[in-house]
Amino acid sequence: MACKRVKISVDLFRFHRGKQIATPVRCVSHARKLSPQTRLFPDEYDKPSMKTTVPGPRSKELLGKFENITKNVEHVLFFGNYKKSKGNYLVDADGNRMLDVFTQVASVPIGYNHPALVEAIQDPGNLSVFVNRPALGVHPNEDFPERLQNALISVAPPGLERVQTMACGACSVENAMKHAFIWKRKQDRNGLQPTAEDLDSCLRNESPGSPPYTILSFVGAFHGRSCGALSCSHSKAVHKVDIAAFDWPIAPFPQLKYPLERYEQENRANELRCLDEVVKLITDYNSRGRKVAGLIIEPIQAEGGDNHATKFFFQKLREICDQFKVAFIVDEVQTGCAASGKFWAHELWELPSPPDIVCFSKKMLTGGYYFKDEFIVQGAHRIFNTWMGDPSKIILLEKVVEVIQNNDLVQNVKETGDYLLHKLEGLQDKCPSMFSNARGAGTFCAIDVRDGATLLEIVEKMRNKGVNVGCCGVRTIRFRPTLVFQKHHADIMFETFDEVLEEMKM
Amino acid sequence: MACKRVKISVDLFRFHRGKQIATPVRCVSHARKLSPQTRLFPDEYDKPSMKTTVPGPRSKELLGKFENITKNVEHVLFFGNYKKSKGNYLVDADGNRMLDVFTQVASVPIGYNHPALVEAIQDPGNLSVFVNRPALGVHPNEDFPERLQNALISVAPPGLERVQTMACGACSVENAMKHAFIWKRKQDRNGLQPTAEDLDSCLRNESPGSPPYTILSFVGAFHGRSCGALSCSHSKAVHKVDIAAFDWPIAPFPQLKYPLERYEQENRANELRCLDEVVKLITDYNSRGRKVAGLIIEPIQAEGGDNHATKFFFQKLREICDQFKVAFIVDEVQTGCAASGKFWAHELWELPSPPDIVCFSKKMLTGGYYFKDEFIVQGAHRIFNTWMGDPSKIILLEKVVEVIQNNDLVQNVKETGDYLLHKLEGLQDKCPSMFSNARGAGTFCAIDVRDGATLLEIVEKMRNKGVNVGCCGVRTIRFRPTLVFQKHHADIMFETFDEVLEEMKM
Repeated sequence: MACKRVKISVDLFRFHRGKQIATPVRCVSHARKLSPQTRLFPDEYDKPSMKTTVPGPRSKELLGKFENITKNVEHVLFFGNYKKSKGNYLVDADGNRMLDVFTQVASVPIGYNHPALVEAIQDPGNLSVFVNRPALGVHPNEDFPERLQNALISVAPPGLERVQTMACGACSVENAMKHAFIWKRKQDRNGLQPTAEDLDSCLRNESPGSPPYTILSFVGAFHGRSCGALSCSHSKAVHKVDIAAFDWPIAPFPQLKYPLERYEQENRANELRCLDEVVKLITDYNSRGRKVAGLIIEPIQAEGGDNHATKFFFQKLREICDQFKVAFIVDEVQTGCAASGKFWAHELWELPSPPDIVCFSKKMLTGGYYFKDEFIVQGAHRIFNTWMGDPSKIILLEKVVEVIQNNDLVQNVKETGDYLLHKLEGLQDKCPSMFSNARGAGTFCAIDVRDGATLLEIVEKMRNKGVNVGCCGVRTIRFRPTLVFQKHHADIMFETFDEVLEEMKM
Repeated sequence: MACKRVKISVDLFRFHRGKQIATPVRCVSHARKLSPQTRLFPDEYDKPSMKTTVPGPRSKELLGKFENITKNVEHVLFFGNYKKSKGNYLVDADGNRMLDVFTQVASVPIGYNHPALVEAIQDPGNLSVFVNRPALGVHPNEDFPERLQNALISVAPPGLERVQTMACGACSVENAMKHAFIWKRKQDRNGLQPTAEDLDSCLRNESPGSPPYTILSFVGAFHGRSCGALSCSHSKAVHKVDIAAFDWPIAPFPQLKYPLERYEQENRANELRCLDEVVKLITDYNSRGRKVAGLIIEPIQAEGGDNHATKFFFQKLREICDQFKVAFIVDEVQTGCAASGKFWAHELWELPSPPDIVCFSKKMLTGGYYFKDEFIVQGAHRIFNTWMGDPSKIILLEKVVEVIQNNDLVQNVKETGDYLLHKLEGLQDKCPSMFSNARGAGTFCAIDVRDGATLLEIVEKMRNKGVNVGCCGVRTIRFRPTLVFQKHHADIMFETFDEVLEEMKM
């Protein structure tokens, strides 16, 4: 192993976690002596167990069948056996049991087959909601308001008391943008309802009814893959190439240097340049009649490579949005539901006033968004579709929220996240030629690998040794464990990292 | 009752149902003597039973709570009690039991709480799929290919053997359009992969990577509410006003006059004018570099007012698409799954070659689309998102398809549809000042009411007498029963119509 084998004892500075920024935390790298922890998932497996390389023969056989049906399987890694998967362990069709730190693109909140969810599905009182999917905008199920209260309003971001469910993340973003457009046009009509000309011209996709308004997004962002959301996504060409897009403004996203405490001034200057550019773009687009109705941003640009910015940057964005009357839309599809060590990652920013709209999906099991009263859309069928979400997912989310609250999983994520990040920093200290820029909030952590080819090699080797991790950006490993991922799971992962690096003679 | 009380015995001409067009069917209006029919839904209620007007006090109370949470409830008619709903009967929160001929915006295939679906959810072998929602593009469940085969490939439209699932109708349409764009760009690169310039420019939403290509849609169309799908929707201003849209071509949709056999020449001329306009638009947009990549159309424009066109029109569209290398996308979100008396409504057109892409959702319980091999997208992560559908819906769809096949529900829809349309024609013959343009395919029927205000009055009175029907367009009643809706249900509906008209002194 070519990396430095040093035992590190350092002052670690946690970053952009609200008040914890620049608070020194003393810890010891590779400390294996943990205080005994309550196991958060009952009867979980103890460790990975591998029978074949991945994908194994059974997965390969299934892949052939699947390919014949969909012709779109190049991204399929293996088939899952979801009967045998449990907690943080994903079992595949060949009986390989992997510690899952990617969790279905960050969408498994409390582990596979959590007993609370099993119980919810088996509860005869819930059966009718699974059998009959209502049109929630027309004939919602009678317990829907109460369940929404329990599942979504009980965990609403501070200052945002209204919620609209949707089927998925992209639909949530699309509808959030629609709220922004409608809100902006209403301002421009001095609060009045659409005119006859508006109503007539919109049917032909013409102005003023279909205004040439825009949504500002950021370089490296990802917000989904339908035409509106995709026009705001700029993380990877393969998502976008050949597909028509709106000509909407795109601002640079900060490129922070690590460690943050060393590059404080440089990073601040970088963020100020980005903020300047945001103002310029808004001013320019507004002056051309292409008014910026909304600004959409992720708390951490996930698909784009786990790019962070400081709370200063987000606070200033809130100010700019206020100044130019632009809807401040925070896309928490990947960061939401406690992964950041707060229930909502934007809570780490300590904003003077809340975002205007907050989108969610993935771990929340349902798509949707919270919004301020100012963004209420008046009139029937303006924000509407057949299903408007799925109440069977709300039943499950209700249980997820209960489990999070009863087990203080937000605190678990914070503690495990501290540990995880610290271990990642240890890894990069050991192998500075291989790893850099360890970063994270809660367990929403990442580390850069020296190049894309090495990244893929590491991830594949990790998987074949029983740890399923994900990639993002061009050379980043992203960690997206469940909320019941604990220090002992992290230890297994880092032991596997050690083995892989040993094998690679690093 | 002011309408003519005549007993009608007429030659009826069924229209645009493939070969049945202009085939005379002799029948007698208001014939109550039916040959005994097997009841298709076990233990169904016998008839509606109303306790309050709708919404009743309990629905109103719930509406207050719901409004406080979502602030978007103006379209909510009442809350459902889905435990007590059964077959074609929807029970509301106040215990009112209504014959449901609207079925959650046309999305209930085989009735409420069908035993086959109850069994599927209670089957312990299916439990893990309801508890754990996989990222189907990365780690699908091991039984997913087989279930896709049973649920979707077994009912694939002739000539379309590939399928991609999606979460909802709008996502399906958005991704179908993406296939069209990618296919068109590939043609324009002579089959080559995207260039470095394509990959670079698309990240900035700029041409050539984000091409200024377009999708042609029709006046009165509805394809969904995300930005791409909404740019192709032109049925109602309230769906679109204030929201940014693509400047894409919009062609006129035929405006048929009824009865079809009387206006054959005039209708043909009208369709020819529309076809001319399609060609002009494609030529014009192509010449300006804004190439038309796809043409999207509903077999029957549902939200737009149940507007039909003849199979001649659709056959010509297929030819035009071939001629100009435009993807022919058929949106069967509302017409699909047997409602038209064929499993797919476009089967009625007897096309010389199949459509290129066929979208579905609603009664299919999952979104998705079928596509020809020519439209396969090569490369990972181009057509992709976190969930790519929901395998728990595929389990349910598998049962739905089994029930449809075992009970020959397509034939039931055809027979019941014949009866339903005949009765509607009887209604308009009795009350020509009130009703006109009875039309339909299968049970996908509609009739126009003299004006919008009267329409709303009739629909409300029908509901309060226990029959829940829907509206579309500006003055149309649309009938969207389940596939287990039978003649005896239709009789109840028409008895209620009679009562309502009596009350209205029509």
